[in-house]
Order: sequence, then C-alpha cells, then structure tokens
Amino acid sequence: MADYIEGKRPVIEALRTHVPISEVIIADNLVRDGLVEDILRKAKKANVPVKTLPRKELDKQSERGSHQGVMAKTKPFAYVNVQAILDTAEQHAQAHEGAALVILLDHITDAGNLGAIARSAEVVGASGIVIPNKRSAHVNASTYKSSAGAIAHINVSQVANIAQTIERLKKEGYWIAGASERATEVIWDANLKGKMALVMGSEGEGLARLTQESCDFLVKLPQAGKVASLNVAQAATACMYEWMRQNRSL
Amino acid sequence: MADYIEGKRPVIEALRTHVPISEVIIADNLVRDGLVEDILRKAKKANVPVKTLPRKELDKQSERGSHQGVMAKTKPFAYVNVQAILDTAEQHAQAHEGAALVILLDHITDAGNLGAIARSAEVVGASGIVIPNKRSAHVNASTYKSSAGAIAHINVSQVANIAQTIERLKKEGYWIAGASERATEVIWDANLKGKMALVMGSEGEGLARLTQESCDFLVKLPQAGKVASLNVAQAATACMYEWMRQNRSL
Repeated sequence: MADYIEGKRPVIEALRTHVPISEVIIADNLVRDGLVEDILRKAKKANVPVKTLPRKELDKQSERGSHQGVMAKTKPFAYVNVQAILDTAEQHAQAHEGAALVILLDHITDAGNLGAIARSAEVVGASGIVIPNKRSAHVNASTYKSSAGAIAHINVSQVANIAQTIERLKKEGYWIAGASERATEVIWDANLKGKMALVMGSEGEGLARLTQESCDFLVKLPQAGKVASLNVAQAATACMYEWMRQNRSL
Repeated sequence: MADYIEGKRPVIEALRTHVPISEVIIADNLVRDGLVEDILRKAKKANVPVKTLPRKELDKQSERGSHQGVMAKTKPFAYVNVQAILDTAEQHAQAHEGAALVILLDHITDAGNLGAIARSAEVVGASGIVIPNKRSAHVNASTYKSSAGAIAHINVSQVANIAQTIERLKKEGYWIAGASERATEVIWDANLKGKMALVMGSEGEGLARLTQESCDFLVKLPQAGKVASLNVAQAATACMYEWMRQNRSL
C-alpha cells in the first residue's frame, strides 16, 4: 500500500477508518487548528506515535506536495500466499458441504472497487482474493475506506500471473467461472456448487483473452438497461450472492 | 443538486462525468495552467458557456472557499412525480409478464450510494427511485459520478413521506418488500414475482420503524462474514438481481 498519506483530512480519514499507521509526522511550524487537534487526539487514541520534523523533511518525503504539514506513514499490508487461501477454503468446504469460494481479480485498477469487493467477499464467506502484482490496484488507504475495514479480515494474495493461479486451482479441484458480458450462459443457469473460483475482469476491458480461455466456463448477469453497465464491484457482489444461493444449506 | 461545484479538479470531473452544467465561471486573474486549459477544452466540447468574473464575485458565491478561481453552476436535477414512475412501471409490466420494480430509499444519506443504486437500478430495468425530500441524499455531482451517468436515465421522485408512497403503491397492486437485517425470511424464499417495490433503509439505521411496519414483508440477504456488513448499494444490487431472477422470462 502507499507509504504515506498526505494532508489533514486524508490523515483524519485514515485514522478514522483504521488504516494501519506506523507514525504520524507533523511539521515543526504547523499551526494547531481544529483539524490538527483532531489528528493528535485520534493518533493518541490509536496509540500511533507522532513525530515532529522540519517542514523541509515533509516536502522531501511528499509525493504529491499536498501534505499541509501532516503526513501518516502506513504499515505495509500483510498479503498472504495462495496456499493460505487454499487452506482457508478447505476448512470452509469441510464445514459447508464442500462449498468454498475464491475471488480472482484480473487487473481491477480502482483501489475503491477492490475494497468494495473485499467487503462483500467477507460478508458471503469467501476464503480469499487473488490479485496480480502488476497493473492492478493494490491495498491502500482507499481500500480500507471502501471495504469499511473488511480488507483487514480477508486473505489477499498477490501473484505474478492470474492464469497460473487458475491452473493451480483447477488441479486443486476448483471450477473456474469467469464473469463476462460476452458470456452466453446466464449465471442463474450455471452450476456454481462446490469449490468455485470467480474471476472478475478489469473495469474497462473485462477479462483478458488469456484469462478468459483459462476459465472452465463464462457466466453473465443479464443487463436490461439502456445506458448503463454494472459496476464491477456490484457485479461481483451479485455473482457472489448467486454462489451463496446455490450452495446454501437447507 | 448542489448549485456550484468548486475547484479545478472537481469541475474537470463534473464535465467528464456529464453533470448538467449551465456555466463555468473563472476568475479574471486566473493563471492558465494545464488544468484550466483542460476545463476550457471540456467546456467548449460540451457547449457549456464560460464566464469571466472578478475573483471577489467567486469568493462571494463560494460555499466552501475552495474554488481556486474556477466554479461550475449546475442545472437543477429534473425530478419526476410518482405518477411518472407508476406509468413507466405499468409499461414495463405489460412488456414483461406483469413484472415491474420500483426502488424506495428510506433516508439514504450518501449521494454516492444513491448513484451506485441508480446505476444498478437502470441496469436491471427498474422503473424509478423514490427518495424523501428531507434528511436524505439528493442528486448531486457525486451521484452523477457514482452512477456513471445512469442517474440521468432513470426516474427519480422526491416525496414528503415514504410511508404514504408505500400506501399508494399498495393500492396500485404492488407488493412492498423491505430489506432488513432483522428479517426472518431469506430473500431467496420470498415471492418477488409481479409488481414489486423494494425498500432499502439508511446506511446506519436501516428501515425506520414506521416504514418497516408499512411493508408487506421483510427480507434479508444472508451474511456469513464475521466482521463486515453489506454496503447498502451492494445489498440493493443483490436484491434487485434476485427480483430479476425470479421474474425472468424463459
């Protein structure tokens, strides 16, 4: 995730939404207004140390030049390896009549969408999220915010190659369903029972060709509207709930 | 919606996402940097007039004091009356074996959530959205952005009292389903066939007691997670897709 959060309101928001922060840095000549007082109060409550540095130092560390005399250094997000997700899924399958769900995100670029998907994934009981380590959103302060903190409670793994992860999941007995507007099968007609991996494409492009070819089958959500297409996080949620519906224990 | 959008980047974003703007106002002493050039280019392309005023005038009209020498005056959003939504729904029902969907939002306070719901509502073919005219988000620039423009293509009605609208819909033959985490019935077991109104509660409080009592029945989406609850727009989307699933024409 981003090393530094810059500016008074973004730092307040980060503290409020429990982004893991190692320290808050304030400029030595900072005027103590109401926002600054709020930051100091929230940092103290969260046991985050506050360091005072010459303003020049903040200028040096600032990427965006928008620090307003306040920055927060974030802790690196604790990604897990794919095996940890598979282990969690195995436990889920044993407790839920063989059902488990892993989410693969094929180059989602918006950190807010990543967070929104993580929030819903945690709610339906998905075992983890796999994202590429390049050309993809990674977990940052926006992800914490849009996930309402859920990102800290679900396994996220970064991999070099989603197609390789798909092959690995297939060997482990997963069915791989790719969500695509170009699919001919409606998701309600697909069989989502058992151990499933749901692959969501990027906001603009959808699934990459290679990823799509690696899937066992493609599914779509019908779209009856005239102008809009579904947001990727909304589509992911609707698909995850259809997985849940088909795998419910009665 | 908000009368003025303030600041260079917010105005660019508003022009990019097709917020209806009647004019862009720039300060007479404004330095023409790259952002300003972008604003002028986008305004010209969208046929939005650009007016130059003394910076003092912008200071006067500014609510937030963050105009940076650039403001955009937005056109009022064209709300419709409930009858227009009922007419649209009637047409939908005639073309879709009696099925129609109206969304009632019981004090959603986040304009971004309103937009996200509108985007999904347009996609599933809902006939309109009814919101209260007080203590509720109304359509503003954030709504345009989060709806990806769909808000301009779905009926939105503001009413004084959601409970009264529910009574009116009942008389028109609608079933009223309230989404609530406190419901005992899972949405998959409910009968959502025919003309339905789906009522979603506010982000923090859920359905108000009076609203809840007016509903014909309450439904919930199962939540298996340990920490998170579903975002209201995600929940609305999952519910709308369940309505669509039950009413599909095979």
